[in-house]
Amino acid sequence: MREVRLVLVGLGNLGQRFCELLPQKAALLADRYALRLVVAGAADSRGAAYAPDDGLDPALIALIKRRKGTVASYPRLGRPGWRAHDLVGRADAQVLLEASPVNLSAGAEPGITCIRTALRRGMHVVTPNKGPIVTAFDELHELAQMSGVRLRFDGTVAGGLPALSVGTRDLRGAMIERIEAVPNLSSGLVADGLASGETWDEAMAAARAAGTLEGDGAWDLDGWDAAAKLVIIANAVLEYPASMGDVSRRGLRSVDGAELRSAADAGCAYRLLATAVRQADGTYTLAVSPVALPQSHLLGRMGPYGMGVVYHTDIYGAIALTIEERDPTPSAATMLRDVLGIFAPS
Amino acid sequence: MREVRLVLVGLGNLGQRFCELLPQKAALLADRYALRLVVAGAADSRGAAYAPDDGLDPALIALIKRRKGTVASYPRLGRPGWRAHDLVGRADAQVLLEASPVNLSAGAEPGITCIRTALRRGMHVVTPNKGPIVTAFDELHELAQMSGVRLRFDGTVAGGLPALSVGTRDLRGAMIERIEAVPNLSSGLVADGLASGETWDEAMAAARAAGTLEGDGAWDLDGWDAAAKLVIIANAVLEYPASMGDVSRRGLRSVDGAELRSAADAGCAYRLLATAVRQADGTYTLAVSPVALPQSHLLGRMGPYGMGVVYHTDIYGAIALTIEERDPTPSAATMLRDVLGIFAPS
Repeated sequence: MREVRLVLVGLGNLGQRFCELLPQKAALLADRYALRLVVAGAADSRGAAYAPDDGLDPALIALIKRRKGTVASYPRLGRPGWRAHDLVGRADAQVLLEASPVNLSAGAEPGITCIRTALRRGMHVVTPNKGPIVTAFDELHELAQMSGVRLRFDGTVAGGLPALSVGTRDLRGAMIERIEAVPNLSSGLVADGLASGETWDEAMAAARAAGTLEGDGAWDLDGWDAAAKLVIIANAVLEYPASMGDVSRRGLRSVDGAELRSAADAGCAYRLLATAVRQADGTYTLAVSPVALPQSHLLGRMGPYGMGVVYHTDIYGAIALTIEERDPTPSAATMLRDVLGIFAPS
Repeated sequence: MREVRLVLVGLGNLGQRFCELLPQKAALLADRYALRLVVAGAADSRGAAYAPDDGLDPALIALIKRRKGTVASYPRLGRPGWRAHDLVGRADAQVLLEASPVNLSAGAEPGITCIRTALRRGMHVVTPNKGPIVTAFDELHELAQMSGVRLRFDGTVAGGLPALSVGTRDLRGAMIERIEAVPNLSSGLVADGLASGETWDEAMAAARAAGTLEGDGAWDLDGWDAAAKLVIIANAVLEYPASMGDVSRRGLRSVDGAELRSAADAGCAYRLLATAVRQADGTYTLAVSPVALPQSHLLGRMGPYGMGVVYHTDIYGAIALTIEERDPTPSAATMLRDVLGIFAPS
């Protein structure tokens, strides 16, 4: 049995779900992969907990967070004075799971500092946090390479869908001519709400109630989230060094409710479509814009909880992946997928 | 630059396409993966060719085959007296690509003997040939393990779709509760033809003309092909030791044309659906049967050239993969995918 010690930074939706998954999956991980995952430490925005020996109880961490507490109050092992960065810098662990919330407009902190520290210390890093990957793709990959560790971020794009995994592994040898993606959930929910006759306020309130829309909605509805995911796909799958400034971006709010309803009447569904199109000179044109997808489109048939990616390639045909994701469990589970990819490669 | 020497057995559609791919992709393989793939030998049903030093010209092999010739007539290097098995037993090569035609009713020969020989000789094996994998999954895996080589067969299920790759790699840690697959192309083409008012003879002739339906049609239309693919999915993804006898099988011809047309009028598409459903005792129930899939079903919206798989899991949600495959290139390209998976793991 191999023991793998994890440090978990960020205990929002994803971090909590991951903590709930661990005890649920312990027997399967032991049986199939001879792995025991130990939470050596955990941090939220108010402090940390660290167990130098046996590890923390992930179910207890999840319980504390569901009650709106801080992990710094963890019995005996709470470290109220520590910030996430202190934990990452000191913990005896092989992997950092960085799941703090992303907001590109606030920069890639606090995630990126923790990730840099972990990589420099020779820890593998698994993160569903787009911020650091979008803003410092090359730097973090070089750091990981220098330390001989892995940097995995399957959860940054389209939740639990293995879009990056398929793109980087199963399409090798191909020229990718075009990518189409619907990587954002909230904007689809809002679009379907508007199409069914709701007002913007009603549709946004429903998406907030479903737990997918956050803040003032700009991040999701104005295409920032889709653009960030497209930048990650471009760098990781296309090996094309794009940044946010390379994405031409038009948000859902540039379409009015009447257009959305008439598209629905015609059997189409509006989605924020992220596209990368290869040009004759080998560069890619990147864009996010609202598109009325017909039923005949591979991504036009997903329900309101659907996300998907289509890769149009020269030798593997057109390969589409879609996921239906009604809660954050699949997104949280990508951290398990990535950890297994490092410690139990197939 | 790393040189990898291949032996290619079977020069039908897939083998020829693979030969055409190699020169087309040589520069990309060198640039991205520092790999040079050399065809050390090739065999068809009438003989072989072997180049102990520099390798055969894959474009010339493809040309000979398009002209209905045998590779045994390859200038200077043809070996008319050799059978495939002689080539595999003697060639100086690291990989066997086994792409001979499959017909389970004729057993898994000639493929399986070549595969056994290659594995015993310490060669990796890549094959899109279902026969040997369906009939000897455990035996061949044990042989590969004993020799410390890889056995890859991504092309055995749903053409160029990385269904096995995703199932074995990206769903780890999950309990797969249900699998639904439309892994056979010809039966969908025929079903759509019937739905549009064609007779069985017309629909089958069209599928034959499209190059997808072979022989008397029983293999594709009566569900044998779908059942074989389901057996491979069960063994490889579910790690469930199933064989053909475990699949309850009903073919497309159990549905009459009128039913097909009325389903089409109702917006449904008949497909041979292969399913694996987990039971309370941990076993899986395997079946192939014609199902009228509504538009709301993830696999009900594919065109006549679509194949797909849906994995219903406990922690990754429902993940669907579909491919549109209008010619055999994607199926042939799976051999490139598998070779890269062995020699340029990501």
